[in-house]
Amino acid sequence: MNKKQLVAAALAIAGVSVAGPSLADEGQWQPHQLKQLQAEFDRVGIELPAAQVADLNQYPLNAVVGLGYCSASFVSPKGLVVTNHHCAYGAIQNNSTPENKLIDKGFLAGSMAEELPAGPQERLYITEQVDDVTKQVIGDLPADLHGKARYEAIQANRKALISECESDPNYRCSVRAFHHGLEYFLIKQLMIKDVRLVYAPAEALGNFGGDIDNFEYPRHTADFTFVRGYVGKDGKPAEYSEDNVPYEPASFLKVNKRGVRLGDGVLVAGYPGRTSRYKLADEVNFAADWYYPTLLNTYYMTLDTIAAASEGNEAAQVKYASRVKSTNNRLKKLQGLQDGFKVTDIPSIKAAQEQAYLDWFAQSDDRKAYADAYQALKALLVEAHAQQQKHFYYNYATRADLLDTAIRLYRLAKENEKPNADRVMGYQERDLPMFKARLERLQKKFTPEVDQALWLSYLGKYLEQAAAAQVPALNKALGISATTTDEELKAIVADFYANTQLADAQARVSWIGKSAKAFEASNDPFIKLAVALFDANMAQESDEKEMAGRLAEVRPQYMQAVIAFNTAKGKPVYPDANSTLRVSYAQVDGYPAADGVYKTPFTSLRGLVAKHTGEKPFIATDKVLMAHQNKTFGDYYRDDLGQAAITCSLFSFGCEPQAARPLEVDSVPVNFLSSADTTGGNSGSPVMNGKGELVGLNFDSTYESITKDWYFNGKITRAIHVDIRYVLWLMEEVDNADYLLEEMTLVE
Amino acid sequence: MNKKQLVAAALAIAGVSVAGPSLADEGQWQPHQLKQLQAEFDRVGIELPAAQVADLNQYPLNAVVGLGYCSASFVSPKGLVVTNHHCAYGAIQNNSTPENKLIDKGFLAGSMAEELPAGPQERLYITEQVDDVTKQVIGDLPADLHGKARYEAIQANRKALISECESDPNYRCSVRAFHHGLEYFLIKQLMIKDVRLVYAPAEALGNFGGDIDNFEYPRHTADFTFVRGYVGKDGKPAEYSEDNVPYEPASFLKVNKRGVRLGDGVLVAGYPGRTSRYKLADEVNFAADWYYPTLLNTYYMTLDTIAAASEGNEAAQVKYASRVKSTNNRLKKLQGLQDGFKVTDIPSIKAAQEQAYLDWFAQSDDRKAYADAYQALKALLVEAHAQQQKHFYYNYATRADLLDTAIRLYRLAKENEKPNADRVMGYQERDLPMFKARLERLQKKFTPEVDQALWLSYLGKYLEQAAAAQVPALNKALGISATTTDEELKAIVADFYANTQLADAQARVSWIGKSAKAFEASNDPFIKLAVALFDANMAQESDEKEMAGRLAEVRPQYMQAVIAFNTAKGKPVYPDANSTLRVSYAQVDGYPAADGVYKTPFTSLRGLVAKHTGEKPFIATDKVLMAHQNKTFGDYYRDDLGQAAITCSLFSFGCEPQAARPLEVDSVPVNFLSSADTTGGNSGSPVMNGKGELVGLNFDSTYESITKDWYFNGKITRAIHVDIRYVLWLMEEVDNADYLLEEMTLVE
Repeated sequence: MNKKQLVAAALAIAGVSVAGPSLADEGQWQPHQLKQLQAEFDRVGIELPAAQVADLNQYPLNAVVGLGYCSASFVSPKGLVVTNHHCAYGAIQNNSTPENKLIDKGFLAGSMAEELPAGPQERLYITEQVDDVTKQVIGDLPADLHGKARYEAIQANRKALISECESDPNYRCSVRAFHHGLEYFLIKQLMIKDVRLVYAPAEALGNFGGDIDNFEYPRHTADFTFVRGYVGKDGKPAEYSEDNVPYEPASFLKVNKRGVRLGDGVLVAGYPGRTSRYKLADEVNFAADWYYPTLLNTYYMTLDTIAAASEGNEAAQVKYASRVKSTNNRLKKLQGLQDGFKVTDIPSIKAAQEQAYLDWFAQSDDRKAYADAYQALKALLVEAHAQQQKHFYYNYATRADLLDTAIRLYRLAKENEKPNADRVMGYQERDLPMFKARLERLQKKFTPEVDQALWLSYLGKYLEQAAAAQVPALNKALGISATTTDEELKAIVADFYANTQLADAQARVSWIGKSAKAFEASNDPFIKLAVALFDANMAQESDEKEMAGRLAEVRPQYMQAVIAFNTAKGKPVYPDANSTLRVSYAQVDGYPAADGVYKTPFTSLRGLVAKHTGEKPFIATDKVLMAHQNKTFGDYYRDDLGQAAITCSLFSFGCEPQAARPLEVDSVPVNFLSSADTTGGNSGSPVMNGKGELVGLNFDSTYESITKDWYFNGKITRAIHVDIRYVLWLMEEVDNADYLLEEMTLVE
Repeated sequence: MNKKQLVAAALAIAGVSVAGPSLADEGQWQPHQLKQLQAEFDRVGIELPAAQVADLNQYPLNAVVGLGYCSASFVSPKGLVVTNHHCAYGAIQNNSTPENKLIDKGFLAGSMAEELPAGPQERLYITEQVDDVTKQVIGDLPADLHGKARYEAIQANRKALISECESDPNYRCSVRAFHHGLEYFLIKQLMIKDVRLVYAPAEALGNFGGDIDNFEYPRHTADFTFVRGYVGKDGKPAEYSEDNVPYEPASFLKVNKRGVRLGDGVLVAGYPGRTSRYKLADEVNFAADWYYPTLLNTYYMTLDTIAAASEGNEAAQVKYASRVKSTNNRLKKLQGLQDGFKVTDIPSIKAAQEQAYLDWFAQSDDRKAYADAYQALKALLVEAHAQQQKHFYYNYATRADLLDTAIRLYRLAKENEKPNADRVMGYQERDLPMFKARLERLQKKFTPEVDQALWLSYLGKYLEQAAAAQVPALNKALGISATTTDEELKAIVADFYANTQLADAQARVSWIGKSAKAFEASNDPFIKLAVALFDANMAQESDEKEMAGRLAEVRPQYMQAVIAFNTAKGKPVYPDANSTLRVSYAQVDGYPAADGVYKTPFTSLRGLVAKHTGEKPFIATDKVLMAHQNKTFGDYYRDDLGQAAITCSLFSFGCEPQAARPLEVDSVPVNFLSSADTTGGNSGSPVMNGKGELVGLNFDSTYESITKDWYFNGKITRAIHVDIRYVLWLMEEVDNADYLLEEMTLVE
């Protein structure tokens, strides 16, 4: 063999072939499903037995933590938790004042005694038990129970299970639908109520790149923060108290100082929020053709309205800043969805998949029920989409903050007329603290002037619709119709804001607990409107429950068909994300971002410094710049980069292994990419190596990955992680967080 | 050995090692130097013997063509030439009318008879002879001849050699300084005067990406055009005539349909214009700290002034469009230089290099002259830079078009008083046709209003300077000083434009051939000013000649030292570019563009279609979109892409060969990258494979490469080429240019 042949032979042995193994790192698996995936663990290079990772009560899953909206993990026996900076932002914000500038400067407690209360809304949730309660939720439903009645029966069963589970006040319980209602699981989570802020980097690092880099890669963000869980002296969860002691978790993640390399297998565990992987081509088309464009226009209108109404009013701008930011974030996501649909023809992929199902259904008479379920779902979706279109602008027209508040307050009064267990979720006793907090919080996030402008704009859109989509109760209460002029509408809306008391936080809160009668006797125009709209709203809700009930019958049947198809092919099926604990396995990997562009999987301190402009959001702190200049890299400088060789590039035309280029890229790793299957809610998820040791924190996805909520394209979908070596380097060489490093278990 | 060890062993054998071979594809070599570079040819994979490529009269160099400002090559025995679309733009423009829209639609002659005259300015130059004339130019200069006298003696010797060489009117000759005057060569070029337009793609393809993609990669541009050289029936060059016949070149390039792959060796031959690779760190610093920023500001001022003065005046905007475009182009280049200086610390690299020289000079007494030359050059540069600063704004203040015209016309009259041979270059009889054409062409490129605004802005800048940098003759003639107000200056300038005749093309041309006395008697304000400034201009020119003469003495001594240093280390030294025929060898390769981003070496039709927006400059024509949709790829679809595997990525942290990913990237190659050392003037250069067969056309460099005029950073410097497969695909599958394909020699 000559050199080329020898190399080719070696690569062939190593698995490099024309076809190549089909790598599918797709899947947000329920832990118990992992037992079926030992071969996949072997393939990507996970050394922990799949059966161990499947066990909630073993390492590493018993070290994984939920935050309600984010994920995290224990990293010390004293309850130290690491999550994303953006997940702990509220905790930092709560403690930041114009004097201490905690957000800007970052924070490091000098000792446990200096750790700061994160605030009453911060909670740690540890999933201790997950039980299949499918039978209890839907097993006994009469076959002739349909629509709204079915929906309500399911809700009642869920509430009963939750209520029973929560008889121990240390636990928060939920009953979640899996496979869109084919299965239900009861999730029992220990809830730690005293959470304290331990260590957060300066915002310049923790949010380096800001909105500009959001959803982008290359990325150079220190998106991490440490908090700690505290419990009462009895070891049980307790509200904040100086006397509380650190929580001792069942276990905590070891931290690997050596991090990962290209191709290494990784595990990502956390609480992904919501995906739509099993929706039909029709649903993608509806989203792409109507829902997303409509939403996009509404977002633009919202932003324009806020900008115009708050022009020159700095206080108002501050109040709406977070709403503008999150709307812009959603806009970018919608833009990414539209761009992504151009690159990957998801409707065609879905349609081809559905055709494959149909072909398989047709192969056997006993699969007829599957085919029927598919057709029934398709037919039902036509109605569901029409309903969604009909309700869209009415919902916006009743969503301005003060009207929304009035509607929610009156609803509370009406729900209070029922026994607690019968009340709709969100209005039960367990929900009241959050309900009140929300009314109070509103004061920081709205001004009557801007709210008025927003309501006016939403009403204007609502009135542009065909009469059939308009709601008589609203038109009548406001005295509006399609012929109402802009000036008339403006005057009507202005009257509401001139005469309401609800702009005052105390006035809002004072309505909690009042009777429905008291509302009905009120002269506050928003309260009056809420009362006038109640029946229409309930009718709309009833329609939606009817639809939900019908879907809750048909969609599980379709999912059963999908599962049967895959089971026949020996493939397990993971359910769509639903904010429950899931595990993904993946590999560290780059991706082809565009014709001629390959994104490589690691970024470095060198790149961070190169991006530093000194202007927001690209400011590396002086300490970081200095440490870089002085080459104070500690244990985290990687000089094995000279070995890196590009032998062939993606997007090249034919390729043979060739001589390596010597490289100059040697620095501290900052962020890295993996093929992990993640979505919103996975922020802060521990990224673990094959031994279950912490090597990074998940915090974002690439722009090209945005469509993954619909379809996971393994070639280009990549999650972005903070490299644990960057975290450790900042702790050791920049911020001297020694006492934290000491309580952690660092391994190599 | 296990799999990993086997792969590692194989890669080691293939030359992949930690250190790796130091690849230095730097060098714009004089053909005769290639004989020393056989080992380099072997390394990059050039099969043609270096000695063959070194010979101007052998294949492939005898098929290489100059255009005066661009490069090209013969590709058929009938004088068919291929170059860049942007190089042949003038030829296309000359033939385009509002009716035929040749620029927009592109052009394909149906037969030779339909080929269109490219215009009187289009010429093909074929370098037939290059002789070392160092001895004739500087060999007999008296040792005590310095400064201006030395400069003028050198010029006289050069002119004499040119004049003798051009006694045959079919040739254009030049004497070029190499190594900044250490050597001189006489270049004798056959000049073909009848050039015709044969085939140009639609501008949407030929300039796809436009200004936005200029200097950028990924790139998807069909930057090619075919022209043909015609000669008289006697085979000798002749001006355009219907009776002319196609020129039969000594040879022509074969065209390889299979193109190239990553890592293939390539040759690029052409006429690079100007580089500064051997300048000192002090010169880089002067450029980076003063010259470039000053130029940048002047460009911005020019653009702002043109925009303001032509606002709402579409005719003026059209006239200045090309100036605005080229200024923007220079601006982007300057921006790229500034960005590049941040990435690569060129002054430090140069300083370290100079220190290495000094250390070597110090090792032996007989190298003292080298050290002296270096110190003398350093000292002289301080003066040279001061002179450059002093003249900068005065030059701009006398550069507005009408004043510049008056100055040049009066100069012509003064030069005409001398025998032709003694006249300064640019004012000799051989230059008159170009001189006249320039005066006429001005009409299409200027308006008095905009010119007036520009002159005013330049004068304003001039007056802001310290008095020492101002020129008394100019201040006196205009009656201006540092205390002149803006309003006064405006009135003075306005008077000039109100009273001059020079805005008229015929009036300008009528001054050619008039005596100096006639100028001195004129009442035209610009002519009067030109006369008044003559002595000052001559004095400045004399100062500059003095400096040029001193540099022409010192810099060659320094270059001698540089060459001695390199020769001692066995390294040949290529001279800076000087618009003479050069050859570069290189490899097809991608590059790390930023932390986390690797640019892969090929782009494809798939990527072109993805970039299509339907709006300029991103329009793929309907025919291309259709051919892509119908998969009419002919022989140019590459389906061997499944073999492409990324085993390790640049910028990754450590790396082991891993399993390949199957790829979907299969399409027609469009553009590709190589490590070739090119610069302005190399546009249109043939890119040849190891056998000297045409595989592409050079047309641009990446943004990260812009600093290469100062320093060639082999890791990131890449030239961008049109893939010949894209050209052939357009000819075969889109435009049906069959008769051209037939006269070419396609090989596989």
